[in-house]
Amino acid sequence: MRIVIIGSVAAGPKTACRARRLLPGAEITMIDQDNLISYGGCGIPYFVSGDVSDEKELRSTSFHMLRDPRFFREAKGVDVRTLTRATAIDRKNKVVNVKDLSSGVEETIPYDKLVITTGSRPNLLPVPGNDLEGVYTISNLHKAIAVKEDIARGRVGKAVVIGGGAIGIEMAEALADLWGVETSIVEFMPQVLPRIVDRTIASMVTQHLRENGVSVYTGEAARKFEGDDSGRVTRVVTDKRKLEADLVIMAAGVRPRAELAENAGLLVSPLGAIVVNQRMQTSDPDIYAAGDCVEICNLVSGRKTFAPMGSIANRQGRVAADNLAGIPSTFQGAVGSFIMKVFDVCVGATGLSLEAAEAEGFDAVDAFCVQSDRAHFFPTQSLLFLQLTADRNTRRVLGVQGFGAMGDGLMARINAAAGLMERRAIISDFSNLELAYAPPFSTAVDILNAAANVADNLVSGKLRTVAVHDFLDWMNETEDHPDWTALDLRHPKEAAPFAEKFADKWIGMPYDMVRSRYRKLPRDRKLVLICNAGTRSFEIQCFLDSVGMTDTAVLPGGLNVVSRLGVKWWPTDR
Amino acid sequence: MRIVIIGSVAAGPKTACRARRLLPGAEITMIDQDNLISYGGCGIPYFVSGDVSDEKELRSTSFHMLRDPRFFREAKGVDVRTLTRATAIDRKNKVVNVKDLSSGVEETIPYDKLVITTGSRPNLLPVPGNDLEGVYTISNLHKAIAVKEDIARGRVGKAVVIGGGAIGIEMAEALADLWGVETSIVEFMPQVLPRIVDRTIASMVTQHLRENGVSVYTGEAARKFEGDDSGRVTRVVTDKRKLEADLVIMAAGVRPRAELAENAGLLVSPLGAIVVNQRMQTSDPDIYAAGDCVEICNLVSGRKTFAPMGSIANRQGRVAADNLAGIPSTFQGAVGSFIMKVFDVCVGATGLSLEAAEAEGFDAVDAFCVQSDRAHFFPTQSLLFLQLTADRNTRRVLGVQGFGAMGDGLMARINAAAGLMERRAIISDFSNLELAYAPPFSTAVDILNAAANVADNLVSGKLRTVAVHDFLDWMNETEDHPDWTALDLRHPKEAAPFAEKFADKWIGMPYDMVRSRYRKLPRDRKLVLICNAGTRSFEIQCFLDSVGMTDTAVLPGGLNVVSRLGVKWWPTDR
Repeated sequence: MRIVIIGSVAAGPKTACRARRLLPGAEITMIDQDNLISYGGCGIPYFVSGDVSDEKELRSTSFHMLRDPRFFREAKGVDVRTLTRATAIDRKNKVVNVKDLSSGVEETIPYDKLVITTGSRPNLLPVPGNDLEGVYTISNLHKAIAVKEDIARGRVGKAVVIGGGAIGIEMAEALADLWGVETSIVEFMPQVLPRIVDRTIASMVTQHLRENGVSVYTGEAARKFEGDDSGRVTRVVTDKRKLEADLVIMAAGVRPRAELAENAGLLVSPLGAIVVNQRMQTSDPDIYAAGDCVEICNLVSGRKTFAPMGSIANRQGRVAADNLAGIPSTFQGAVGSFIMKVFDVCVGATGLSLEAAEAEGFDAVDAFCVQSDRAHFFPTQSLLFLQLTADRNTRRVLGVQGFGAMGDGLMARINAAAGLMERRAIISDFSNLELAYAPPFSTAVDILNAAANVADNLVSGKLRTVAVHDFLDWMNETEDHPDWTALDLRHPKEAAPFAEKFADKWIGMPYDMVRSRYRKLPRDRKLVLICNAGTRSFEIQCFLDSVGMTDTAVLPGGLNVVSRLGVKWWPTDR
Repeated sequence: MRIVIIGSVAAGPKTACRARRLLPGAEITMIDQDNLISYGGCGIPYFVSGDVSDEKELRSTSFHMLRDPRFFREAKGVDVRTLTRATAIDRKNKVVNVKDLSSGVEETIPYDKLVITTGSRPNLLPVPGNDLEGVYTISNLHKAIAVKEDIARGRVGKAVVIGGGAIGIEMAEALADLWGVETSIVEFMPQVLPRIVDRTIASMVTQHLRENGVSVYTGEAARKFEGDDSGRVTRVVTDKRKLEADLVIMAAGVRPRAELAENAGLLVSPLGAIVVNQRMQTSDPDIYAAGDCVEICNLVSGRKTFAPMGSIANRQGRVAADNLAGIPSTFQGAVGSFIMKVFDVCVGATGLSLEAAEAEGFDAVDAFCVQSDRAHFFPTQSLLFLQLTADRNTRRVLGVQGFGAMGDGLMARINAAAGLMERRAIISDFSNLELAYAPPFSTAVDILNAAANVADNLVSGKLRTVAVHDFLDWMNETEDHPDWTALDLRHPKEAAPFAEKFADKWIGMPYDMVRSRYRKLPRDRKLVLICNAGTRSFEIQCFLDSVGMTDTAVLPGGLNVVSRLGVKWWPTDR
């Protein structure tokens, strides 16, 4: 059997190597138009930052062998042809037309089974100046090497990253952190990480970026890139400002690279991704496809989508290889698990954000929870923030997102949620999920269990909240709510500076005194219940309900959230 | 409604507080024979070690309020009676007979609904001298305070911990690490953490304990404790040796504290735990029970068991309270999720160990996997070890256990596995599980996916292994296998010292040369394929199969495992 694989970054090599193990007699040829193959593309920001010193590390195995054509031939038994572009697929004759990019020679490579793993390409912003020197998309390892060389040569003092998604933020950190480049992010949407997390957590990320010297401009569009006489970029012009720039990274998303498939008459989705079944077969049963170039099913919404991730590419590659060998493995879809480092914090998500859930028509509730990642008495504890989105009607959990100190603690909750979400688990499944517990690792009621309990209280109507941004608008006096008063339940020492500064709308009464003193509270206005995490507020809401004072709303996550949003009105410590 | 709760450590307070929120009109009374209540019992080793300086921290909320009777009364609206022992439950008259331990006064407390949360008590070893001064069980916070006082007064130079389970190991670390006490662990079973992890991972834990100065004696029984004239312990005598000891901790497991329930005629299991339904109701519908004192169902084996864990107690407490309030929540059982810190490493598990799975009659396969916890090119990466046990017939995953550097990385995989295991997931569910991926956190093929792939290869017969302990017996020459030869596939520099030292049974041939040079390999003997992690060995096994050389066996986890077992034959570095 002759297996030909077009594309050699992630899904391609995975398919080749697994097929090699399953089909010792097959002839396996992998082609790529590039000379650098089988690299960890997700590691590019860490190569640019200098965390990874040599690009060869991104192309090496864990046992330090370079994954070059020689390695694939000798160690893996896979023939690789680099600098070889597939120009067309001739399905009738079952050959791939290729062109040797060094010699210009064209030829055909016959196949019995073909695998398309052509990946994705970054979107090029359609604005004037996008072809100036110093304006990059990170489409492959060569571009990353060029960016790093620009910086290492001292040519970059200021940089602008267009796009506040994961790659944009990772690149901004790479530039600002180790190289000290003055870096700005320009994001067209009103928040960073749009559609991945919701606005509260996005705001926490933005604030952390700013604290680390990265300027963030959201809701702002790049209009043009200006250059000097030599053709090198000098400035980014947005609809609101001009930003000096020696380097511009366009990180405005990617799109599937599916022209070859489309030109061969294979079915391609409206989003431009190759349509495959669960066995990774395209509309031609002898042609498989895997990785960034294929359409996948979102397992929460059921919507067909496109989810370019190295991890998914690898899983699909294994499934494709299994099916080449007659093993009926399937890839069912994705829930969209996500994690990223941002300086000293991390942010993660799985499933749908609240915004995405509402766009899909769910009647969604949104449970926000803040608590220690490990036992609050354990010395290394720090706060974790988790937001769980659930469908009010079916109680199905639709998504979990979070923010915390850099480390694996957030991932421990995201991973657990991902497995349940794939299986349409409901709130009580999350309440009872048996997360591993010991004080150095977690709390007896883990934050993921607790977030589900909050969702349960929301769905059953026991917990009523005010949206964090509505509270902020009120505090910032961009919204007027003359009938609101903040009731601060924290220790008097914590509450006093607030009650003093906002004497007209902020009162303090410690949590453990409300049962005896609630009669002194105003009854003519809505009490916005405030503590550090939201838990004391919820308890007091239940109590006040029981004495007929039902016009209350809990501030979800309490001041632990607000203090991480960089609000200007925060009283200075006395 | 009058709700009475007997026991105030974990499940009791949780039930009380949740019931308070749901049933504002109820009268809730919690009683306890102790004066210290609502504490984090799992934090005791960290209090003894000094990581937690004051026992009050174990009894405080995350917002630093002491959870004493005043707190429960004023903040929670729950009446607590400490130093009050429940002596009997009179179900006919629906009263609890109690005795005030200060005054000796006896009285009755009427209930409409009763909740029994009496917890567990440590097993007292039935050996002479178990009542000597300086011999402790850690049955409550008072004992922990006494142990810490003994150490702080300089009375403890040498300590012996009886029991190599989680609490025994945590206590040994507490004594040895910060206090510098010369500490030994004596474990009756042939390994530490018996029934929780299997022997390879247990051996890695033992070796790490030894590297940190803790002596570990497994397969050894304490026969008696000897003391001096003052009645203070001086020595532990086992069936193999005598160990000097100024302090002895008996950590030989716990058993449910169910006498009160049993004497009241409630159904109690053969293991001595209170029988409850999924709504936490005992055999008397007006009496609930939760926490360490109840029987639960192991969701993997289906067997009824007993799983004393603070996290489970809290979840059950919430379910009990819901049902008191007419909300039909259920607690279905446990898969046995487990994690613990051991000096600089952590060990974790969920589901059944191989030994436990075989004891339950499963035809189990055992997949061992070693790889970087994050991208191998990421600076902070370290090795993670994972063992996945699956049923050969149904492909259901029965258990996952692991070992790695101290941190949350192992927990991230254990938690994800736990959620799937509760849902009877099979190997391919684990292969395709969508764990969050980014280079600072994980690898494109996460170790949990990879372990499932190894299990798939095992079940389908593609991968054939040698048991690590059989390999060790061969290397230690306690087992003779004249027909075995080790084929070391690592870099020649790595393989040379081994091939030199073990010239009669160890040969080297680098992984990437086998395809061209395999004809030079011996064909008259079994090749034990060796690399650092097992992956190169598996590839070579597939290749050798394809050329008819099928008498091979992969060493699972490779020398990365063996090097962590403290073997004496390891060649010194040249």
